[in-house]
Amino acid sequence: MSKQMLPVFPAGCCEPMVREPLGEQDAAELARMFKALSDPVRLRLLSLIASHAGGEACVCDLTGPFDVSQPTISHHLKVLREAGLVGSERRGTWVYYRVIPAAMNRLSDLLQAPAQAGVPAGSGT
Amino acid sequence: MSKQMLPVFPAGCCEPMVREPLGEQDAAELARMFKALSDPVRLRLLSLIASHAGGEACVCDLTGPFDVSQPTISHHLKVLREAGLVGSERRGTWVYYRVIPAAMNRLSDLLQAPAQAGVPAGSGT
Repeated sequence: MSKQMLPVFPAGCCEPMVREPLGEQDAAELARMFKALSDPVRLRLLSLIASHAGGEACVCDLTGPFDVSQPTISHHLKVLREAGLVGSERRGTWVYYRVIPAAMNRLSDLLQAPAQAGVPAGSGT
Repeated sequence: MSKQMLPVFPAGCCEPMVREPLGEQDAAELARMFKALSDPVRLRLLSLIASHAGGEACVCDLTGPFDVSQPTISHHLKVLREAGLVGSERRGTWVYYRVIPAAMNRLSDLLQAPAQAGVPAGSGT
């Protein structure tokens, strides 16, 4: 009955880091979010949720693809949730997860860089 | 004399993860890159390099803002370099660092998500 709204990520921070250096507080917060992405199983879980039909996945959809136990999957989902990258909602028997687009886009925007690569770093001495 | 070219990051991977789930190999590689970003000092170092005039920073520009020792800064720069996020070049006395745009954009593209947030996850039961 009561539809639970997913948390809306506060806007503001972050400009692409090519424009301005990060402050200490933003860096600490963003490092925690990147830490949640620093595990291959968590990255795959996040991508499974993000790409699932309708943009959300039941926890029952998320255990099959992995060689790890259900409690391990639950732990990883908790880390993603605590980092603010996914929201969850219980409906009936199952818990459903969906990504929080504002959080993903905050990290995505931060990492945007000019496209050129392979440019010499400058004249030698 | 010999201008060292920065490594050009291999193109291909990655579609935004909202489009397709990550494979195991990509997830392992990307998790290593995100791990390099999971430390506040490394994030600030990367943002200092990225936002520095001319897109590159001398190691001599990178120690002042931090309360950590020069060897610690060097260690963090090595982690960023080994993750493929920055390239370095020695010119004269100093080593210069610049970000590798293709690597940053690979992570940025991966995390792109549709903009809407705060959408109810669906009808309750």
